[in-house]
Amino acid sequence: MIDLHFAPTPNGWKVSIMLEECGLPYTVVPVNITRGDQFKPEFRKLNPNGRIPVIVDRDPPGGGGPLTIFESGAILHYLAEKTGRFVPRDLHGRIRVQQWLMWQMSALGPMLGQNGHFSLYAPDQIPYAVERYGNEARRLYGVLNDRLGESGYVAADNYSIADIACFPWVMTHKAQRFTLDDFPHVRRWFAELRARPLLQKGLAVGRSAVRRTLDEQARSNLFGTKPAGGDAPGALQSQQLDT
Amino acid sequence: MIDLHFAPTPNGWKVSIMLEECGLPYTVVPVNITRGDQFKPEFRKLNPNGRIPVIVDRDPPGGGGPLTIFESGAILHYLAEKTGRFVPRDLHGRIRVQQWLMWQMSALGPMLGQNGHFSLYAPDQIPYAVERYGNEARRLYGVLNDRLGESGYVAADNYSIADIACFPWVMTHKAQRFTLDDFPHVRRWFAELRARPLLQKGLAVGRSAVRRTLDEQARSNLFGTKPAGGDAPGALQSQQLDT
Repeated sequence: MIDLHFAPTPNGWKVSIMLEECGLPYTVVPVNITRGDQFKPEFRKLNPNGRIPVIVDRDPPGGGGPLTIFESGAILHYLAEKTGRFVPRDLHGRIRVQQWLMWQMSALGPMLGQNGHFSLYAPDQIPYAVERYGNEARRLYGVLNDRLGESGYVAADNYSIADIACFPWVMTHKAQRFTLDDFPHVRRWFAELRARPLLQKGLAVGRSAVRRTLDEQARSNLFGTKPAGGDAPGALQSQQLDT
Repeated sequence: MIDLHFAPTPNGWKVSIMLEECGLPYTVVPVNITRGDQFKPEFRKLNPNGRIPVIVDRDPPGGGGPLTIFESGAILHYLAEKTGRFVPRDLHGRIRVQQWLMWQMSALGPMLGQNGHFSLYAPDQIPYAVERYGNEARRLYGVLNDRLGESGYVAADNYSIADIACFPWVMTHKAQRFTLDDFPHVRRWFAELRARPLLQKGLAVGRSAVRRTLDEQARSNLFGTKPAGGDAPGALQSQQLDT
């Protein structure tokens, strides 16, 4: 059995989607990130970086006791290895999945996170930052669009963990005021993925837990900029909510 | 033989260090990122994301023709797999390396990159952004320090690709006005790694190519914020220079 320490965010959904797609049994342990549960000592024992998602696999292959894993990209990689699903077997294919997964982790996720912060959440509009991250987000959508114009899926000819990693971030496009009409290959891919029943099941996990209205303390827990020495929240959108 | 498409940046050095540490023969192909070589069509064939480093392994294990890999994290992962070096063999150890490598790729690198941009390179001082990324950088140094207080190396009891990924970013601490005196476990680890002869050899690669004075066009290629449809540079410090 796998425990999934979860909140309904793009990086959280990557893992709930993967678990559903693989048909692995799991228990959701909700982490109330608006209340700051991710800063509590018991959570930091699981992830010293204070971010969801985290999994604990109580029965990993080969034994060795429960295996705790943080960072959504590492969790996807592990679950693909554990099940043999959603990653090609040949070296060239595997490496291609790894590189696009890294692209999602290092670029698409963090930069859409910054764009969301400055365009939607920051207390003041800062034109330089809004332009900087808006342009970078648009550039990254362009890279993804070009890629999906030459390949059925992000990393390979088949659906892989690179697609699962990108999908929940592309879900943010409307809120971030992008239209997929500008990125027709992304639109085609997005519609195909969204129709997958198990992906939908993964997305439904914890959706009801989203707090649509953020009070002051929740804003501070999610987006505060105080350094997080000890208990103080030091949240950054995406970088802080989840990894 | 491996071609290393390289510029002397933190993500570039990750790979030159790894190649030296593994004793793999390689040829450096300089990419003049201040001149915008990374936006040229021939480079984009190697990496559609327009970033260094990229490797081309002309003789990958198992054949299948030359293997091109972008994203520094994917390259480190591949070279560790190819050589069996700097990654544990047991599942728990391997996953721990993967998760800290992902932490470097998704958090330490991008956020130090943003901090460097707003504290050192942005044309105007924007207090909100300087504070936001300064605090996040400090938080991440704290996470690394706590980790190195309980473990000899970042991910494992032995030097691994997670250390190789973090080291060149921690090298930026002085320029970003941090002192490792505030992070004594990082200081101990940093000094130990810096003393490694092969790491030093990796760092020496292309160091002379750094242009200390940036003219307007170079600034635009490196840090411009225009969207990169076609050839236009759309650079973000770290996110744009290298991945």
